Amino acid sequence: MANQEVKPVAPERRPRRRLRTPNPVVRARILAASMDLIRTRGFSTLRIDELAAQAEISVGTFYLYFDGKDELFTSLVVEHTRLLRERLEQAMAGAPNEEERAERRLDAYLDFVEENEHAFLHFLRAGSMQTTVGDLSTWALGQHAEDVRPLVDESIRSGAIRAVDAELLVQAVLASTQHLAGYWLQHKDRYTRAQIKEFIRELSLAVLVGLRPR
Amino acid sequence: MANQEVKPVAPERRPRRRLRTPNPVVRARILAASMDLIRTRGFSTLRIDELAAQAEISVGTFYLYFDGKDELFTSLVVEHTRLLRERLEQAMAGAPNEEERAERRLDAYLDFVEENEHAFLHFLRAGSMQTTVGDLSTWALGQHAEDVRPLVDESIRSGAIRAVDAELLVQAVLASTQHLAGYWLQHKDRYTRAQIKEFIRELSLAVLVGLRPR
Repeated sequence: MANQEVKPVAPERRPRRRLRTPNPVVRARILAASMDLIRTRGFSTLRIDELAAQAEISVGTFYLYFDGKDELFTSLVVEHTRLLRERLEQAMAGAPNEEERAERRLDAYLDFVEENEHAFLHFLRAGSMQTTVGDLSTWALGQHAEDVRPLVDESIRSGAIRAVDAELLVQAVLASTQHLAGYWLQHKDRYTRAQIKEFIRELSLAVLVGLRPR
Repeated sequence: MANQEVKPVAPERRPRRRLRTPNPVVRARILAASMDLIRTRGFSTLRIDELAAQAEISVGTFYLYFDGKDELFTSLVVEHTRLLRERLEQAMAGAPNEEERAERRLDAYLDFVEENEHAFLHFLRAGSMQTTVGDLSTWALGQHAEDVRPLVDESIRSGAIRAVDAELLVQAVLASTQHLAGYWLQHKDRYTRAQIKEFIRELSLAVLVGLRPR
């Protein structure tokens, strides 16, 4: 899907004028400046006047290119998703086998995540309320992790599964279960509850089987 | 952690007066009314005046109990996390074995997700930009899913893994990988990049092993 097709549905209200022939260099400069600012201190406190100063343009010029922060953020995600896919593709090119392809892909992904730490976390946790106990969605998953953790510890202790990192395993299982539940709600035309349930069960069992002591 | 300790860190600014002896019945009525409204049409368009009408209180009374929508939402998540944990615990009680416990737990979780569909999706996707191609984080994951999907299809076709639902498998693997990457960034004091990478690799391999044809 081309870049310009992905736009926020409720752009900030503002009398809007757009250039007939936007300058791609200016647009790229705005995106680059915003990444610089996000990298040092995150997106939520980013101000348009600061961004304009960093990009060496006027605030008015910024609004000729973007409706506001929502559209800027959407453009950044679209642009970086495209770049990331290219990088992953390139990273895998020339790998001698499937295992090595997977290895290189994962490395390139972690490179990207690390380079874009602030933007990635904003993307992942955006809108999750910042509370006195930290990010609200992280807190809620952590509550459930407390309940599930003893089961995983016991599975490791009893030798049913290998001694992997119990906390990471709990986080991975809960996150994928939560995501699949959300995916189901967003695709009820394609999946019944029974199908989602069966899949989660099969995947959980597969993980247990795959983690049996070697 | 007790309910009242979890608060948004940047509550909406508003001259604030709190009751010395808040009425728990009124508080519960506000929470119940907000759940009713969220259930029928979601959280983002919920208005305080509507909520007050539904709860049969004045707008002024609402603000004696909550700073605004952020604090209301935080309270709803805290309350429902507590209720969900209790439900999961109860669901598992009396199950004859570990497999049945897992089965009942999953069923109770899906019950909860289904009953609270709008609130759950808001919680999961809150703040993710709503765009012309739908929720931005769903779109971005979908882009990567397009790239990974052929690999999974091929693994199924070649008989390396069983004929599970390829789309759900891709979604689960990408979501847990993304979550673990975010977890690492939030816990760099506890995990090195090498540890996270090794764990993602081991988990991915375990899934493949566990999904081998029976």
